[in-house]
Amino acid sequence: MDIPSEDPTSLPTPRRVRLLNREDRLYHVILAQQFDRDIIDHLCRIAEMTRIIGDTRAGARFLNSILSHKRAMLYFIQPSTRTFLSFAAACQILGMPYNDVRDPSTSSEVKGETEDDTVRVLSQYFDIIIMRHPSEGFAETMANKLNGIRRCIPLLNGGSGKDQHPTQALLDIYTLYRCFAPSSVERIRQDPERNLFAGKTIAFVGDLKRGRTVRSLAYLLARYPGVRLLFVAPDELQIGDDILEHLTRNEIEHELKSDLPKTIGECNAVYMTRLQDEHDKDGESRSIDLSRFSLTPELQDQLRPDLAILHPLPRRAELDTCYDSDPRAKYWDQMRNGMWVRAALIAHVFNVDGQILDHYYSHFNY
Amino acid sequence: MDIPSEDPTSLPTPRRVRLLNREDRLYHVILAQQFDRDIIDHLCRIAEMTRIIGDTRAGARFLNSILSHKRAMLYFIQPSTRTFLSFAAACQILGMPYNDVRDPSTSSEVKGETEDDTVRVLSQYFDIIIMRHPSEGFAETMANKLNGIRRCIPLLNGGSGKDQHPTQALLDIYTLYRCFAPSSVERIRQDPERNLFAGKTIAFVGDLKRGRTVRSLAYLLARYPGVRLLFVAPDELQIGDDILEHLTRNEIEHELKSDLPKTIGECNAVYMTRLQDEHDKDGESRSIDLSRFSLTPELQDQLRPDLAILHPLPRRAELDTCYDSDPRAKYWDQMRNGMWVRAALIAHVFNVDGQILDHYYSHFNY
Amino acid sequence: MDIPSEDPTSLPTPRRVRLLNREDRLYHVILAQQFDRDIIDHLCRIAEMTRIIGDTRAGARFLNSILSHKRAMLYFIQPSTRTFLSFAAACQILGMPYNDVRDPSTSSEVKGETEDDTVRVLSQYFDIIIMRHPSEGFAETMANKLNGIRRCIPLLNGGSGKDQHPTQALLDIYTLYRCFAPSSVERIRQDPERNLFAGKTIAFVGDLKRGRTVRSLAYLLARYPGVRLLFVAPDELQIGDDILEHLTRNEIEHELKSDLPKTIGECNAVYMTRLQDEHDKDGESRSIDLSRFSLTPELQDQLRPDLAILHPLPRRAELDTCYDSDPRAKYWDQMRNGMWVRAALIAHVFNVDGQILDHYYSHFNY
Repeated sequence: MDIPSEDPTSLPTPRRVRLLNREDRLYHVILAQQFDRDIIDHLCRIAEMTRIIGDTRAGARFLNSILSHKRAMLYFIQPSTRTFLSFAAACQILGMPYNDVRDPSTSSEVKGETEDDTVRVLSQYFDIIIMRHPSEGFAETMANKLNGIRRCIPLLNGGSGKDQHPTQALLDIYTLYRCFAPSSVERIRQDPERNLFAGKTIAFVGDLKRGRTVRSLAYLLARYPGVRLLFVAPDELQIGDDILEHLTRNEIEHELKSDLPKTIGECNAVYMTRLQDEHDKDGESRSIDLSRFSLTPELQDQLRPDLAILHPLPRRAELDTCYDSDPRAKYWDQMRNGMWVRAALIAHVFNVDGQILDHYYSHFNY
Repeated sequence: MDIPSEDPTSLPTPRRVRLLNREDRLYHVILAQQFDRDIIDHLCRIAEMTRIIGDTRAGARFLNSILSHKRAMLYFIQPSTRTFLSFAAACQILGMPYNDVRDPSTSSEVKGETEDDTVRVLSQYFDIIIMRHPSEGFAETMANKLNGIRRCIPLLNGGSGKDQHPTQALLDIYTLYRCFAPSSVERIRQDPERNLFAGKTIAFVGDLKRGRTVRSLAYLLARYPGVRLLFVAPDELQIGDDILEHLTRNEIEHELKSDLPKTIGECNAVYMTRLQDEHDKDGESRSIDLSRFSLTPELQDQLRPDLAILHPLPRRAELDTCYDSDPRAKYWDQMRNGMWVRAALIAHVFNVDGQILDHYYSHFNY
Repeated sequence: MDIPSEDPTSLPTPRRVRLLNREDRLYHVILAQQFDRDIIDHLCRIAEMTRIIGDTRAGARFLNSILSHKRAMLYFIQPSTRTFLSFAAACQILGMPYNDVRDPSTSSEVKGETEDDTVRVLSQYFDIIIMRHPSEGFAETMANKLNGIRRCIPLLNGGSGKDQHPTQALLDIYTLYRCFAPSSVERIRQDPERNLFAGKTIAFVGDLKRGRTVRSLAYLLARYPGVRLLFVAPDELQIGDDILEHLTRNEIEHELKSDLPKTIGECNAVYMTRLQDEHDKDGESRSIDLSRFSLTPELQDQLRPDLAILHPLPRRAELDTCYDSDPRAKYWDQMRNGMWVRAALIAHVFNVDGQILDHYYSHFNY
């Protein structure tokens, strides 16, 4: 069996493509590697404030006035309900009208336009491009292209080929952040010394070789000393050596495991993933026994009461529906967190995150 | 010839699924049977006020501030221009941003997600789901599902299989309501004793066996004592016995007829329908002679001057285009009424119909 | 070789279809011939003001309050990214919610509805229809249909068959207008005597026989005495005699040319077009040598420093990408100008262009 590995997180930084604006604020968001601990903490704080503000009618109206003067293009050439709707909802929360191109066959690319030209045309009509594309490296190439033109606009990568999906990593870490901070006040408190992940054990379970979300999230967590990562997978689907080397280099404690039932008891969070068999060349992963890598009904009583269960969805048998109403299930919140953290990211890119901070401190900080 | 019957309106109430909120306000809207006379009258009043308010620039702006803090999902898996656009326009009237899923093949259901999970994911991003689906009972099943989760949001059925299309019944009865009330003032006056349908004769014409709109509307009209219903159809397409029994049980005068020209003279309203031959098993309805069940040019002079002509559209030969500019044609208004009554229903579900009432009485009641 | 000609601009005016409202303001916009010099100058002024106002945050918010009480239908049965997105952005700039129908196969036309009925249904839900359709004359027929009904709403032609695309002509002339006026102040100054095109030489290059944009633009430019037009094309693709006769009749200086390199030196603007080989019957245009009708890298040094390069895009080899970052390239601005001029046109049709004028003079005129 030969399951090819990918290496989304081993890309060198700094990149050739300039991704920051003049004030070193995030501008193009292409790679999970762009997020250092400061920016992760900042975006999680803004996401948390956005969530709290958005929960009130007056707050929701404040939010949807913030970007009503901008327009977004959701250029989603690769099918995706969840990421698309989450970004769309994030735009709506901030009051930013958007448009989408989802099926290039109904577009004028049939007249023989290059994708280079298409992106440049889009930059004339819109103020930000949020892009999902099947080709690896495409978002980065387009960001580079945009950097070279007069009307440069920011580009957010909503998933580019098999390698990068930075906002997924962001929503995953925000979900853990919410699980590990005891209260909203704690989440929002500005404290560069705080490390919510120190002393926490987080298990990644399933197809770790081919799932980009696990790889990106592991990379982000490596920025938090004291976290302990367990990789629970069949040998054929175990996490790539590049990740392990990266963790070692950063002195992050980690272990490979091959049995979820024997591991789950020591976990503060478990990140389940499905088999990525769409990447199979010849059905090679069909023969793998996933029973020891699944949250089955039998395990429900062995879990710690404060365990956080995450899953990027869609899920299959690896996560039994009996957990759906378990208070430890965080995978539904995880979806919704994606909306808040994407709103926070967009606000940051447009430099209006300060307005959210101001609004929060003047209305909710009592 | 064996044309199978459906029975949309014979479902028992109260249902197993809880459809109301804690204040017994409509929450999930799944079945035409949910609308009793009080709620029909209330929604028609709100629809009328919405229409009048929306006709002025200041009023339109008031309306589109009402729900600007909510977001809707239009999950229309079954093709539909009219219902989709009407709901979309209703959302826009109330200022509620929406998103849609119309083609499941471009969604991540290709990754093997169940519809259960999809609906629950949608509930994370949106505040209401408006759904059209080819499977009978699907909307009800999903409402039940939503009732069981923490972030429960209301679900409106925009057509579920062959059986239920409650908002169509609502727009039909609102159209008749507008036709039979002499003025807007009369329509808006709150009067639990008023019965606009008493003494009126309403004919249903065409494929009454398989058209769900007629069946649902007949059910709603059965709530108004004194109305008289005529069912004008070829034997093979006549209305189901269940409806007739329901009318008898409710002491509603009704008659079966087999010739529109001989019947039309005594009608206050005529509800035309097209042949539903997409439900044919083997083209069995092709041989039916529909000439005696059509509004032909020849009939135009025999109609009462105050007749109201309704048709749910799309139409075919059963409704000649010569009627299109006849003042008795109400089928264009009927479309537009759908928009107003759906806006009223959405406002009701979100408990902001009171704002529409208040605005009307403070601005238009002179 | 037999390349069929089209004749978009030879249609007689006044038309049978009434296109103006009672105050002789543009209502339905169907044909480039509707734009006389007064209305072109007016729309270019409004577009310029809209552009300047929209560039500020407060201005953008003013603009997106103007039409928030209206709703638009973008009925785009023929694929088009650029025109669709440009109109969509124009609606968003003016704050007008819109909806779209892009694929009639997902609409209820499958139930056998005529396009007549579909357009009339749309007129019930929306306040304006912006339409693109593959059939020649379709927009005009529908405008006529709308004129005959009670709820008549304006219709804008976003491209109808091979013949008419009036807003493309408008954005092209606005782009030239911006190139030839020395400053924004000059563009906005109201001066019926001003003729920005007098003394200017403009070359049209490429497939002039079948490109509707060139034909329409030539027609508009014929309203400006003193302009000089050069048509640079292979014999088989040269501009139609009807256009030449129209120019002669209007005493507009013009010449046919067959070599761009020898012509480019005397031009103030060059309008490049691609080969419209989708209209080929049998690949007849494949054998044409286009090298003498292309802006190649070699020509870059021979161009006048103030030359304006236009292209309606998408482009192919006739316009080398080396020009993309040349300051003389105006084809990217041209896209964006389309958005502003369409916003101006929509504002005009709804009679709110006066609000844009007022806002400009009270906020920007110093």
